[in-house]
Amino acid sequence: MITPVDGGVTAPAGFRAAGVRCGIKKANLDLALVVPDGAASAAGVFTTSKVQAAPVVVSKAHLARTGGLASAVVVNSGCANACTGPAGLEAAREMAAATARRLGCPAEQVLVASTGVIGVQLDVTKVRTGIGDAAGRLSRDGHADAARAIMTTDPWPKAYAVAVDSGGARFVVGGMAKGSGMIEPNMATMLAFLTTDARVAPPVLGRALAEAVADTFNAITVDGECSTNDTVFALASGTSGVAIGEERYADLVAGLRAVARELAIGIVRGGEGATKLVTVRVTGAASAADARQAARTIANSLLVKTAIHGGDPNWGRLVAAAGRAGVAFLPDRAAVRVGGIELFRDGVPHDDRAPAAAAHLAGAEIDIEVDLGTGATHQATIWTCDLSADYVRINADYRT
Amino acid sequence: MITPVDGGVTAPAGFRAAGVRCGIKKANLDLALVVPDGAASAAGVFTTSKVQAAPVVVSKAHLARTGGLASAVVVNSGCANACTGPAGLEAAREMAAATARRLGCPAEQVLVASTGVIGVQLDVTKVRTGIGDAAGRLSRDGHADAARAIMTTDPWPKAYAVAVDSGGARFVVGGMAKGSGMIEPNMATMLAFLTTDARVAPPVLGRALAEAVADTFNAITVDGECSTNDTVFALASGTSGVAIGEERYADLVAGLRAVARELAIGIVRGGEGATKLVTVRVTGAASAADARQAARTIANSLLVKTAIHGGDPNWGRLVAAAGRAGVAFLPDRAAVRVGGIELFRDGVPHDDRAPAAAAHLAGAEIDIEVDLGTGATHQATIWTCDLSADYVRINADYRT
Repeated sequence: MITPVDGGVTAPAGFRAAGVRCGIKKANLDLALVVPDGAASAAGVFTTSKVQAAPVVVSKAHLARTGGLASAVVVNSGCANACTGPAGLEAAREMAAATARRLGCPAEQVLVASTGVIGVQLDVTKVRTGIGDAAGRLSRDGHADAARAIMTTDPWPKAYAVAVDSGGARFVVGGMAKGSGMIEPNMATMLAFLTTDARVAPPVLGRALAEAVADTFNAITVDGECSTNDTVFALASGTSGVAIGEERYADLVAGLRAVARELAIGIVRGGEGATKLVTVRVTGAASAADARQAARTIANSLLVKTAIHGGDPNWGRLVAAAGRAGVAFLPDRAAVRVGGIELFRDGVPHDDRAPAAAAHLAGAEIDIEVDLGTGATHQATIWTCDLSADYVRINADYRT
Repeated sequence: MITPVDGGVTAPAGFRAAGVRCGIKKANLDLALVVPDGAASAAGVFTTSKVQAAPVVVSKAHLARTGGLASAVVVNSGCANACTGPAGLEAAREMAAATARRLGCPAEQVLVASTGVIGVQLDVTKVRTGIGDAAGRLSRDGHADAARAIMTTDPWPKAYAVAVDSGGARFVVGGMAKGSGMIEPNMATMLAFLTTDARVAPPVLGRALAEAVADTFNAITVDGECSTNDTVFALASGTSGVAIGEERYADLVAGLRAVARELAIGIVRGGEGATKLVTVRVTGAASAADARQAARTIANSLLVKTAIHGGDPNWGRLVAAAGRAGVAFLPDRAAVRVGGIELFRDGVPHDDRAPAAAAHLAGAEIDIEVDLGTGATHQATIWTCDLSADYVRINADYRT
């Protein structure tokens, strides 16, 4: 059983955190530390972009070298340290080294993440000062400051935690995330940090993280963009003493997934110019991959996103998006539902039901369901937001 | 040598056309006929959507049955006859049959196209009246009315023609097109009609059309959408007497491509809310497919399109889009040019040149070039437009 609990990355036992201001951003907190009591098991999932920011390169190397051990995570906002060449790599390495010196651990046990402007060198002097400051403020209450310090243009901090009852034993999973706010040039990064006090071997944690990410962080889209810095880390302190063996593995995945899902949906809600959270569910697909592909095509369709923004129950745009998704789709056996109201089925429109669907679209939580009509039962869910004129304004006008 | 000439679909000898109003649209012309003097060679390229409108189904069947012969093309605007089930198929067949009766040709020698609202039945009585009316008005001067009659919300009609000097002989290629104006629900269709007075066997015409479409109509994108009705037809009357054998084949492709390219670019210029024509050229790709994939990803990136709309020389968004395109890309050897001005090369930004690039972006014709840095020389060009708040307004608010 999974129950929400208070707090974020420090809700699990054995973690402290801090968020400070070191001056990379003009105002606001811009450096966060998350520190386990001793070396924790660690795993990461990274951007699939061919352009990988320096902190991504360094963190991947550290995880590979330690086999999945971390004594700290250090994150800055305001500068992505991406497209910064050899100097940028040096800066990311020094960010880890400075943290290691301050905390007394090997540098390769420090994981690094950055978010902010692309193509600008990171000011390492400021980062070093921030690390010293943050290390002095580490506490169980530091999670709220940490969640604020990783924000760029996110409208609010995103943190969540749950307790997992696993066959009489109890462990906690917590987390924080930042979304793809891009008011500053290219602040397109999604970062998420998950923590647990379960005792998990690094390979098991890695597998569980990948599973949890697949239908949460990898099932959201704001504008179809993927950044140079996207990173999700998971750390397991083991402090609860609850060991994850075969029999508790599913509970660990469920706990990670519950936190990841809440954070992922929070990112979509905070999408640029977003006024509605849209859940796109595709059913009746010939395969799981087809279901995901169709859901993603629908969720990224500009015509679908603008219709939802305008409150228009436009089943034709949903059918057209499914039709061009490149997957098996039988319009004569398909169905389109908006807020549970069937507007199209077996090739026949039901436009008399449009007013009821329009009433649903007037709300802030929109449910779209498209049955591809193949007779098979594969399905997928993607969360997205509507597309507003504000999105264009935010992304076109920030320098003017 | 290729020289622009006056006119559109009737610029080649052996074609007459007409555009009339039959009442499918509230006002304006809404039915067009293009008629060769006798049966012409014919070929078609159709939407790849799994949802194919009735006229697409009927025209494909007619081309298959005749082996590529057409005595007329009939087109209506205002109603797409898509998602209309068996009744819609019947209506598309009757549209061909009525044209055939009026012109005295077999029904299977009539090609049909429709554009407009999805999910609404076509009023066949109005179409029949329109066909009779148009058949009585067929003329060499009818091309302008025909080009207007196929418009939905296109801001202007699109027609073009060229003369091709082919080793001393001369033939003409003409055409008209409508773009993806979607102010009415789902008016997402691209239709194009190419004509020539060269003498071409249907299979050769089909091959030449496919070649010409690949880097013209298939190299444009307004919003990444593909419709249920997209159709390109080519008709060859043979009236010029210039036979296309092996030695003139390349000239035929060049003529078709020249007309298709002008019409395709016209569609992008007339894209919804578009204020700029953007040419995205990708070079240094490992394969032609990689080049097209990267160019398309860049051209459809909302962050790229909004940056261009805002006049922002944001090379970071171009690098990020290329990075997530799923193709070989070496940032350390890549280059980004805006209006010929190199803003990023070999991993190093040149932000001092941003003002010059911004001046280029203030214009209406934007050139973007991204060299993927693989050392190979494959390249591709895609034309697109910027993304404005007007696009969102047009597509979100048309019912409000």
